[in-house]
Amino acid sequence: MNGAQAIIHTLEGAGVDVCFANPGTSEMQLVAAIGESDKMKPVLALFEGVVTGAADGYARIADKPAATLLHLGPGMANGLANTHNAKRARSASVNLIGDHALSHKNADAPLASDIETGARPFHTWVRSIQSIDTAGSDAAAAVLASQSNVPGPVALIVPADVAWTEGASPGKPLAVPARLKAAQAGIERIAVQLRDAGERGALLLGGRATTRRGIEAAGRIREAIGTRIISDTFAIKTARGAGQVGIEKLPYFAEQATEALANVSPLVTVETKPPVAFFAYPGKPGRFAAPGAPVLSLALPEEDGLAALEALAEAVGGPREAVKRNALSLPDAPRAGKLDVMAMVTSVARHLPEDAIVIDESITASIFFQGVLAGARPYDHCDLMGGAIGYGLPAATGAAIAGRGRKVVCLEGDGSALYTIQALWTQARENLDVVTVMVSNRTYAILNIEMARVGAQNPGPKALSMLRIDEPTLDIAQIARGMGVESARAETAEAFEDLFAAAMKRKGPFLIEAVL
Amino acid sequence: MNGAQAIIHTLEGAGVDVCFANPGTSEMQLVAAIGESDKMKPVLALFEGVVTGAADGYARIADKPAATLLHLGPGMANGLANTHNAKRARSASVNLIGDHALSHKNADAPLASDIETGARPFHTWVRSIQSIDTAGSDAAAAVLASQSNVPGPVALIVPADVAWTEGASPGKPLAVPARLKAAQAGIERIAVQLRDAGERGALLLGGRATTRRGIEAAGRIREAIGTRIISDTFAIKTARGAGQVGIEKLPYFAEQATEALANVSPLVTVETKPPVAFFAYPGKPGRFAAPGAPVLSLALPEEDGLAALEALAEAVGGPREAVKRNALSLPDAPRAGKLDVMAMVTSVARHLPEDAIVIDESITASIFFQGVLAGARPYDHCDLMGGAIGYGLPAATGAAIAGRGRKVVCLEGDGSALYTIQALWTQARENLDVVTVMVSNRTYAILNIEMARVGAQNPGPKALSMLRIDEPTLDIAQIARGMGVESARAETAEAFEDLFAAAMKRKGPFLIEAVL
Repeated sequence: MNGAQAIIHTLEGAGVDVCFANPGTSEMQLVAAIGESDKMKPVLALFEGVVTGAADGYARIADKPAATLLHLGPGMANGLANTHNAKRARSASVNLIGDHALSHKNADAPLASDIETGARPFHTWVRSIQSIDTAGSDAAAAVLASQSNVPGPVALIVPADVAWTEGASPGKPLAVPARLKAAQAGIERIAVQLRDAGERGALLLGGRATTRRGIEAAGRIREAIGTRIISDTFAIKTARGAGQVGIEKLPYFAEQATEALANVSPLVTVETKPPVAFFAYPGKPGRFAAPGAPVLSLALPEEDGLAALEALAEAVGGPREAVKRNALSLPDAPRAGKLDVMAMVTSVARHLPEDAIVIDESITASIFFQGVLAGARPYDHCDLMGGAIGYGLPAATGAAIAGRGRKVVCLEGDGSALYTIQALWTQARENLDVVTVMVSNRTYAILNIEMARVGAQNPGPKALSMLRIDEPTLDIAQIARGMGVESARAETAEAFEDLFAAAMKRKGPFLIEAVL
Repeated sequence: MNGAQAIIHTLEGAGVDVCFANPGTSEMQLVAAIGESDKMKPVLALFEGVVTGAADGYARIADKPAATLLHLGPGMANGLANTHNAKRARSASVNLIGDHALSHKNADAPLASDIETGARPFHTWVRSIQSIDTAGSDAAAAVLASQSNVPGPVALIVPADVAWTEGASPGKPLAVPARLKAAQAGIERIAVQLRDAGERGALLLGGRATTRRGIEAAGRIREAIGTRIISDTFAIKTARGAGQVGIEKLPYFAEQATEALANVSPLVTVETKPPVAFFAYPGKPGRFAAPGAPVLSLALPEEDGLAALEALAEAVGGPREAVKRNALSLPDAPRAGKLDVMAMVTSVARHLPEDAIVIDESITASIFFQGVLAGARPYDHCDLMGGAIGYGLPAATGAAIAGRGRKVVCLEGDGSALYTIQALWTQARENLDVVTVMVSNRTYAILNIEMARVGAQNPGPKALSMLRIDEPTLDIAQIARGMGVESARAETAEAFEDLFAAAMKRKGPFLIEAVL
């Protein structure tokens, strides 16, 4: 068995059975090893940002890591923006990065670069295999590291001669230890403080705390003592829609976020940190908790917030289960006429099927979604976690592979989509059940807002031209067809309503360009 | 004047007047400063790989740096693959990378990452501005650093509050020192050895030595003493076609490269290093010079190889100018029938206009070009230098901006094109005179060759499926139209001949999908 075979066998033994890949020459032995395997499913992408973004979406839905295959330093670099997002999403993945043969390292060949250094800022763990003897055990260590207390993407650098040399053996799968428990004494102290605070107290949920189990426990706490339940502005996976416990979401803009927390005391964080501004602005607050209000940690990001929430629910004498839940409230069809964000989200809310997965990278548009989708059929909502745009189409691709039949709806901005538009080809290749709603406003809309907010007043036409993507107009429906994905364009509310309703009833990839 | 204005003024003062940009919130002040300027031309791209690849193409043609605008760590990361290529191409550029405000650095906001560490492996110089007081001088230092003895991309990290704070002043432009001179004694020793070797001696040209001035001097040496002239396998900018001194090119594959150098002694390198294999392969040589043959450096990469070649031409008593030059030899129209690489390159050679720029990322196809294009009208040929595919369309974009009316022909592989296909939109937006010939073989053809070469014998259909991009078929002509670029498809030699001839006579971006 050569090193590549040992690595692939080790991953399979640890339950990793999907590999998102964009390989090159230095990865050919890994490609061959995957080719021989009857367990590992390879998913080819045309660009590495698709690879790493798909691994993010996959991990959020499958709750386990995928592998990826990347070509030396530049291949890794192309995947780093979505690796950054995956790290912020605590999405476990094992990035296998090919490197030059150890025997060729000092040749400084054209593709050579310092992969380890480049990998470090964006991965939670980095290792370069130094010998065929450790190829298997290094792979086992990588899988374990990806699922540590704070999961994330790890980099395992595989020199070509490690991959091709015979004499390797698979690494023994390493058991993932139970998550760290938050101290019971701390939970009890927080119970007392939250009980005293009543409706002034709030839980701020991050990490896995916004999944169904987390918000169920939070709902019990609220029903016992009135505590507000707020999720981070961006959440990894939130159980939403009818039958779920309803929660607030912290607004994006500093003014609104500080307003939302103005009367909160104490603020109790669960698997997250005290909330900060996405960007700093001149003269605006960078931290959102009310001045002087205690900010207490129920569970740090590395601790088990689900268990801590359940222990807190017991400590405050919460009911056995939450009673107050979102009612099913499907809106009427939107009024006919020019399409706008509200009409679009109304149609989405009406027709989203039960147990769907929504991948949301609609940026400015998403500000309007939150209320309308609360009454939809129950579904999982996944936000962009690291702010690096170009996450949506790839993450939807990976989520569809993990979802095994669950409908995936990707709410995507046109500006963001163009970073990783190649994901559509993989959706077509794998015939994935992904419907992309392309919110096409033909501008970096958020930047038009941010320009003034950073203090640049009255920008002229030359500056504003750098924020507009309407010259020439992108025909995204046509680009999608060029990549093998059927598509249509909607410019009216009634056209979108019909297209989206029909898309929910069919299978396979489809893109609707929603021109606003 | 705020920090952003000081930085932009400094760049302009140092002669930098083009900025390829994909900005975000943290760069809004720099956008505003460019907007106010009447010198700096902003060129918007939809993806950062286009930005940095354009800067590479620009520097090769303009012989000076462009600036770029990138959005924090992930924006930089998206640009790193082409930054790697630019570094290998010794293309000066100043990457302005926005960062969080210094006051917000310890907030660990979603987009925060260690930009400096991530930048280091891919840039020749990295600095993060620490204070408004040094914003201008740091910018001046960055421009100088980009044009050091070995030019390359540099990273200047600009915290948002440095950009928005008033009280900055522009930095004084710093004079770029003359390039290091190779020692005259060494040149004279090499003259003796090359004279003794006659036709067994060879010059290996890299860096700027393949430009017109370099090959002119090399031609004089060859005519005096018979020395062979060989360029690196991949060359930054080679003066080719009729009227130029004809040179060999070192083949890509190890067997052919060692064969080409088998009888060479001594091998004299000029602005390059002793030649090594692009990849290592089991049992194949990693270094190409004949065993035992002396390898001498006429000029190191950081030394002035042009002056050294001219001094060597004097030392060997070369003629005042080279006499033997490529004759104009325009081939007949290719035979009608199914399009193949030879038919395609025949049409390119026939119709390429004088003083054109060819950006070559046609990978496997380019092996066939070399001879046919030698008899074309004189032009500059630019190769992919760092091996990170996705260089062609962006570099053609930057070359067209620098070329100010010179026709740009981009010979591009379909697999490679899809990494940075967004460049077409910028070509449309700027109405650049770029004709893209998309060599569409619908596979990663080179990997089918490499699979066996790394020792993976008889790969099965599952492994081979990871090298094929024909399911679904990409309709690149349609994708181009979706990005605003007119396009057509050719499946026969006569169709390609007609399309290419017509494309050479019109202005503006156009794409021909050459289906092989």
